[in-house]
Amino acid sequence: MSTGPTPLDSQTLEQLRKLLGPGGYLDEPADLEPFLTDHRKLYHGVSPLVALPATTTQVAAVVELCAARSVGIVPHGGNTSYCGGATPRESGAEIVLSLRRMKHIREIDPLNNSVTVEAGCVLADLQRAAESVDRLFPMSLGSEGSCTIGGNLSTNAGGTAVLRYGMMRDLALGLEVVLPDGRVLDQLQALRKDNTGYDLKQLFIGAEGTLGIITAACLKLFPRPRGYATALIAIPSPQAAVDLLATLRGTLGDSVTTFELMPRSALQLVCRHIEGATDPFDEPYDWYVLAEASLPQPDSDLAERLQSVLAAGMEHGALLDVLIATSLAQREAFWKLRESIPESQTREGASLKHDISVPTQDLPAFIVEGARALEKIIPGGQLVAYGHLGDGNLHFNLGCPEGMDATTLLGRATEARRAIHELVAAHHGSFSAEHGIGRQKVAELERYEDPVALALMHQLKDLLDPAGIMNPGKVLARK
Amino acid sequence: MSTGPTPLDSQTLEQLRKLLGPGGYLDEPADLEPFLTDHRKLYHGVSPLVALPATTTQVAAVVELCAARSVGIVPHGGNTSYCGGATPRESGAEIVLSLRRMKHIREIDPLNNSVTVEAGCVLADLQRAAESVDRLFPMSLGSEGSCTIGGNLSTNAGGTAVLRYGMMRDLALGLEVVLPDGRVLDQLQALRKDNTGYDLKQLFIGAEGTLGIITAACLKLFPRPRGYATALIAIPSPQAAVDLLATLRGTLGDSVTTFELMPRSALQLVCRHIEGATDPFDEPYDWYVLAEASLPQPDSDLAERLQSVLAAGMEHGALLDVLIATSLAQREAFWKLRESIPESQTREGASLKHDISVPTQDLPAFIVEGARALEKIIPGGQLVAYGHLGDGNLHFNLGCPEGMDATTLLGRATEARRAIHELVAAHHGSFSAEHGIGRQKVAELERYEDPVALALMHQLKDLLDPAGIMNPGKVLARK
Repeated sequence: MSTGPTPLDSQTLEQLRKLLGPGGYLDEPADLEPFLTDHRKLYHGVSPLVALPATTTQVAAVVELCAARSVGIVPHGGNTSYCGGATPRESGAEIVLSLRRMKHIREIDPLNNSVTVEAGCVLADLQRAAESVDRLFPMSLGSEGSCTIGGNLSTNAGGTAVLRYGMMRDLALGLEVVLPDGRVLDQLQALRKDNTGYDLKQLFIGAEGTLGIITAACLKLFPRPRGYATALIAIPSPQAAVDLLATLRGTLGDSVTTFELMPRSALQLVCRHIEGATDPFDEPYDWYVLAEASLPQPDSDLAERLQSVLAAGMEHGALLDVLIATSLAQREAFWKLRESIPESQTREGASLKHDISVPTQDLPAFIVEGARALEKIIPGGQLVAYGHLGDGNLHFNLGCPEGMDATTLLGRATEARRAIHELVAAHHGSFSAEHGIGRQKVAELERYEDPVALALMHQLKDLLDPAGIMNPGKVLARK
Repeated sequence: MSTGPTPLDSQTLEQLRKLLGPGGYLDEPADLEPFLTDHRKLYHGVSPLVALPATTTQVAAVVELCAARSVGIVPHGGNTSYCGGATPRESGAEIVLSLRRMKHIREIDPLNNSVTVEAGCVLADLQRAAESVDRLFPMSLGSEGSCTIGGNLSTNAGGTAVLRYGMMRDLALGLEVVLPDGRVLDQLQALRKDNTGYDLKQLFIGAEGTLGIITAACLKLFPRPRGYATALIAIPSPQAAVDLLATLRGTLGDSVTTFELMPRSALQLVCRHIEGATDPFDEPYDWYVLAEASLPQPDSDLAERLQSVLAAGMEHGALLDVLIATSLAQREAFWKLRESIPESQTREGASLKHDISVPTQDLPAFIVEGARALEKIIPGGQLVAYGHLGDGNLHFNLGCPEGMDATTLLGRATEARRAIHELVAAHHGSFSAEHGIGRQKVAELERYEDPVALALMHQLKDLLDPAGIMNPGKVLARK
């Protein structure tokens, strides 16, 4: 059983510097600073050194040295965690290991529809590389301009194309991982099918760096869609969105790639804070859906088919208004409304965030019950419940009421979280649908996870990382 | 470290009978017999008892008792393993645990596109249940009339729809598993997204019952395709098939759901042994492809688009002849040719089987090199290399040469296997693409697996099943 990492001594630091060489580390306070605070500024850690290894061999050497000295290591990608998953703790006893120099695409193979890429590659760079060989890498996130493949894998990222293409786990063919004792697990297969023993890569996907450091991955590519149909739809209620999803999938099947719910409050925030964003409808509505279907054929009549389904919905009164994008610019404008929600909420000020999923048909009741619960705790708070309705996943966020200061709001975060997560449990849902546990939700996992499952997670951690050096304090509450 | 299971004493057997109750076990020799031999008749084991638990609670009680006494347990589904994965060893010290009474569909939810089903449910029964609520469960295998969901999950089954829908792992949302100490891991979530800690279900998928017994699963359903286009295509070479796959995916994208390669030898076997099967072409060709595209829309012009791509291929001389199915009966006839290959090979007599995958573009060279290697060891053997070319996966089988008896052929199995698997390794492929390890390929896994990966597999086995009672002798060579 681990007793946790020990403080960093100057001899260890000197050995790490030597091992990494010039350009291979940062240790000036100003240089360290960006690595010590998370994206949401919830945590501020302390660390004397950021390792910047350039190769898997260097990562392995750093880990081996840290393992020998019981020094904690915090793997770091694009620093876009919503849960403090990549921020060191306050003890100063941990080093940060940034993968940012390991950003190369090692091989891209359009015939095999696969790409082998290092963990530090930015998601948008990989999307572009796929496009350059006429393929699609479908993972798509608000933070795609800065988040990295290693972070996407370590958090099993989701985003707006999950409905059709799955989570990051579904896109991984093989991994290269440095284990907590410095051994390198090389499973960079580019195979669609491989049933030779236990599928070890699954252990590290979604483990948030607590079981090893992902240094490279072989990922799936797809044919690029060539026919798109995109609609922004005004609806009276979340129930109308659930019904519409069933109708769309019943007629357009799994060509439906995106189905995102947005409340009026989200559209207002975006129009208020994002340059060039405007409400495209003539009058205000309570709820909106951004729906997109795509097919590989350029000559498809997809837009007409989408339009005819939605026109029928208008006639029956199930839908209140429908806009179909008739140009690429209009499609981009619709997407911008959806994608700017997190940014506009940040600009608006403090908010409480919950990342929940429940079975899709439970979502309407959940929204009503959740709104009621939050109103009791923070009267007048602005509910911004939006996101991936097609996956049963909403970001159930609450903006600060007028006249309340941020400190007061954040002081009620624990109570609000408890209320929402109790509701999630009652609906057999997840209190972390896509953002992971990080540091923020460690207590939630201890509370809500099935005890047998939780015990098994601790057993796996003990097995792989007996010294407890990998991303200490994240995911699991260690004794 | 395990010392392996101990022999079964009469007191333990009596306790098991009592625990399972009347109808809950088999112990007459004639009743036991079907559980003691594998589908391919490669192994014949010994066991005094087949447990037939009706509930998860009963499975847990059996496992708990066996754990206390270090009695080995062989989980048993539809008995269709190609690798002896569900057959007890010859010691007589293991019980068989058949899931066949646990065959119920606990819940089917078309709105959430999910189904919760017990492990003993036959695959074809689940397919029908999905159809009855206008949904598709896409897993499709030759043995779907007898194989079970628990076996499909435990072997991470593949089949003919992997190109579009993935392996069994990709279809699993949640699992219920009885752990080797009798605890029940209840992770039957019906959620598309759940990033709360390590994804434990992944451990048990593809573990062939060596880490626990899967008792139930929550699985994905899909919209039912309504537009099909199916073609049987004569081609000059495997390279022409690889090129055609790229062309088809480039034009029809991921609506291409099936792409299967068949050699002349396979077609001949099917026409010889399967009633009603005939060669639909006017003249013989060396190689064939069965290709199918499907879309959710009934009004699609998919067949015309497929035809126009294939017509262009005929004009360029890349394809030799093309037949597009113009009726459901014709589509079924094409499919029957493909699906009857294993059955016709069994009727033909003894054969050597290899289940390999390599990156798709390596397949043509692999076929040439593999044929040459086998000809050296078994001159005049009939190569039947067929299967899921779209996934890079071929069943690289060799029929008995005329005049050679089966014993002589099987006597060269080890040498042939070594030659093929060495080639697989040289092409960075897999020596078990979809059939798993079972008992047959334990030595192969020891030989070809990366030592770091193999060590980690043994560590996981030690962690979860320290007494070594779960499906002993399968997957890993235990000390």
